[in-house]
Amino acid sequence: MAQVQKPSIPKGTRDFSPEQMAGRNYIFDTVRSVFKKFGYKPIETPSMENLSTLLGKYGEEGDKLLFKVLNSGDAFSSISPEEFNKFIIRQNSSRDDVEKSGLEGGYLYDDDEAGIEKVVNSNALSLRVCEKGLRYDLTVPFARYVVQHRNEITFPFKRYQIQPVWRADRPQKGRYREFYQCDVDVIGSKSLLNELELVQIVDEVFGIFGINVCIKINNRKILSGLAEVMGFPEKLVEITIAMDKIDKIGLDAVKEEMLSQGVDEKGFSILEPVLTFTGSTQEKIALISDVVKDSETGRAGVEELKTLFGLIDQAGIRQKVEIDLSLARGLNYYTGAIFEVKALDFAIGSICGGGRYDNLTGIFGLPDVSGVGISFGADRIYDVLTGLDKFPKDAITGTKVLLSNMDASSVAYLLPLAKKLREKGISCEVYPDQSKLKKQFEYAEKNHIPYFIIAGESEVQSKTVNVKNLETGQQTTVPIAEAEDFLG
Amino acid sequence: MAQVQKPSIPKGTRDFSPEQMAGRNYIFDTVRSVFKKFGYKPIETPSMENLSTLLGKYGEEGDKLLFKVLNSGDAFSSISPEEFNKFIIRQNSSRDDVEKSGLEGGYLYDDDEAGIEKVVNSNALSLRVCEKGLRYDLTVPFARYVVQHRNEITFPFKRYQIQPVWRADRPQKGRYREFYQCDVDVIGSKSLLNELELVQIVDEVFGIFGINVCIKINNRKILSGLAEVMGFPEKLVEITIAMDKIDKIGLDAVKEEMLSQGVDEKGFSILEPVLTFTGSTQEKIALISDVVKDSETGRAGVEELKTLFGLIDQAGIRQKVEIDLSLARGLNYYTGAIFEVKALDFAIGSICGGGRYDNLTGIFGLPDVSGVGISFGADRIYDVLTGLDKFPKDAITGTKVLLSNMDASSVAYLLPLAKKLREKGISCEVYPDQSKLKKQFEYAEKNHIPYFIIAGESEVQSKTVNVKNLETGQQTTVPIAEAEDFLG
Repeated sequence: MAQVQKPSIPKGTRDFSPEQMAGRNYIFDTVRSVFKKFGYKPIETPSMENLSTLLGKYGEEGDKLLFKVLNSGDAFSSISPEEFNKFIIRQNSSRDDVEKSGLEGGYLYDDDEAGIEKVVNSNALSLRVCEKGLRYDLTVPFARYVVQHRNEITFPFKRYQIQPVWRADRPQKGRYREFYQCDVDVIGSKSLLNELELVQIVDEVFGIFGINVCIKINNRKILSGLAEVMGFPEKLVEITIAMDKIDKIGLDAVKEEMLSQGVDEKGFSILEPVLTFTGSTQEKIALISDVVKDSETGRAGVEELKTLFGLIDQAGIRQKVEIDLSLARGLNYYTGAIFEVKALDFAIGSICGGGRYDNLTGIFGLPDVSGVGISFGADRIYDVLTGLDKFPKDAITGTKVLLSNMDASSVAYLLPLAKKLREKGISCEVYPDQSKLKKQFEYAEKNHIPYFIIAGESEVQSKTVNVKNLETGQQTTVPIAEAEDFLG
Repeated sequence: MAQVQKPSIPKGTRDFSPEQMAGRNYIFDTVRSVFKKFGYKPIETPSMENLSTLLGKYGEEGDKLLFKVLNSGDAFSSISPEEFNKFIIRQNSSRDDVEKSGLEGGYLYDDDEAGIEKVVNSNALSLRVCEKGLRYDLTVPFARYVVQHRNEITFPFKRYQIQPVWRADRPQKGRYREFYQCDVDVIGSKSLLNELELVQIVDEVFGIFGINVCIKINNRKILSGLAEVMGFPEKLVEITIAMDKIDKIGLDAVKEEMLSQGVDEKGFSILEPVLTFTGSTQEKIALISDVVKDSETGRAGVEELKTLFGLIDQAGIRQKVEIDLSLARGLNYYTGAIFEVKALDFAIGSICGGGRYDNLTGIFGLPDVSGVGISFGADRIYDVLTGLDKFPKDAITGTKVLLSNMDASSVAYLLPLAKKLREKGISCEVYPDQSKLKKQFEYAEKNHIPYFIIAGESEVQSKTVNVKNLETGQQTTVPIAEAEDFLG
């Protein structure tokens, strides 16, 4: 055996205690039950995907945040010393020299492109010894799943998936390197009824949680239309990235960023009234409809938004739903509706979001399959439920009855009662050790067990048990034959 | 975007379809409900643990089977080219030279110890660039958890944990590189009531599954006692490893293996009657009690076994429970009772197993904390339930009602009904696209949806719906206001 270690876990990861698990399971069970009620089915995909499946799907920044898994066996011993040495890029070698070396993957260039420091080519060597990575989200694995299993799937395919994902982000408050996503998507249908259904799901989930939210909706086609009528269709990404920051940095800073990205004053003047407009859904639709009237894509986006809000009006959604014309969401694979859900009574970022994507499976060889989905942020929802004290009491209760352990014969007397209680579905425990009664009491209290059944010599003789309600302090002597009904 | 890829997943890993997930969730939900009824509480630990937590805990073979995760950022760029070159072990260097190089970790030696081939030192380099590994089981992370959180935990601590584990084993039928374990343990109590409780849990779980099993029990102290009276106490591990194979290779081969490990004929002649004995629990206890009577440890083991079987007799266990004196189980951390569960009507290895360990947390600095636990093999249980056709029909049903989509007005007519059905807890879907009715039918059939509600123009006018039972083919016209009760 090795020497004693002080135990710890990798930074950015977490242990979950029974109390935390109770809260988390309440969240997962709730979303799962709602997903099921709307006909969504669970799938699971492996934690490790081939790096070829993951790389290039999340942008350059995303690639860096992938956790790579070292090939099993002796990963490096398949590299000959000669090849191994090639991963050292010699001083003063040029970019050409590096390319000639024939190694794939990224390289570490010096800032001064004329010469390269002598360094180990980290990225190239990583890709030589790692074929697998931990999944970064559930969307790309879902796209991979749909393409790989397309012949077994009946479309439209309604799936949900609740699994952890991993990101090598710098850990900070509320940001972890391992966290769960709860995704619900329908793929293979262009109907806006799917968007409605997702709004209904959000409405129902947060209704059960007792959290008041605002469901913000926009449409990526409207954003494209805006970029078009601004005269900068090729700067759609830069424009949406800047727009997305308006809540955080304000209108002036958004303008500054866009101008620095090459948008001109005239272009921004078209966008500005859209970003600052406040009004009803009807008024917003009228405004945007006018602004993007010269863009075919923009008009299509407005039509979709109108239809969706028509459906939402009919459906009797209880939570607040509004058009947010500044809502952009970073991910570039969205092509239609985009969603974001914010808690109204608790300051935290978005707790749910998603949108429609028209070509997610294209990269895996199955083009033109449209889908729409949303993802619930379990960690933030946990924080909101905790902050607003909305976890239902019965969600976190465990054992209902503790049975005492005085000696072997009293245990023998109580074991059949424990069995009967469990047959009635009442969770109970027999205290395993013959400890002092005080210690057994403390165990019940610390574990929030509401009933403690005590049987000593006199109870065994009189065929009774002593039932103590630890919440009220009340103590009752009951014939053992009636104890199960007394507690049921 | 990169070029089109043919999607695949890493070997030894699996996607789970909705049908498979239904079966798996049935298994997890069942064991979870039983664990809860006995007062066990869930915890979860991170998928990645520090390698220092995992290495050295599973033997040399286990260390090799750990999946290592490459440090995030540019893992190799923190290595200078000079240090990097040290990982190449030069030809003809001696073991001394290697040790002098100061690199930690294992080395690749040539068979001829005099000289070493020029190779990349895979293990040493791995440890230089990987600090984390994927968990190999749930037991070591549990021990780590208990020590790390000992001040928050009330002992005895009864926990269950259902999470995936990863092993870089060679994939083969029934052996995967990612699979779930369902562990239930109580730590901080030496009472045999805990062993009884685990037997009760096994009894109840397989009772619900409808699988007939045999619960085999032995005690590690008896095995130690046997090695002692055989005259080879120091060969306990070799003896138990050989004994464990008796079902597979037979008595003669077991004898051969032991003799080759240095056990003599006289020693084996003491063991032989124990391995071949058949009889009742009482007879087995009488036999072993006599054989190990000169070993204090052996006598203690017999006492424990007697007490445990006394408790089991009183508890009214429905499944078969027997002493198996040849049961050894490979894991060396067991110190008391050991368990193994086999299906009686289906040929497959053990589907559940475990035992008592007296010092699992010692390695992390908390000595003398005794615990006992078992682990359910979800994949094998899935195979048994499939093979014996024991999955309950209602465990795998999804949506109950599909509502047709003929045109926008018929959908508007049906949406309030869908809402009412869901409010009653009936899962239903509105077909999202205005496809041909035949296609909608097929969707219902392929998804095993038992009811299809159709409303065309005439139904909308007459305020009715057409309810088709897809199992019987029966079709009924019902006023829409009564449809929810008709289906409820």
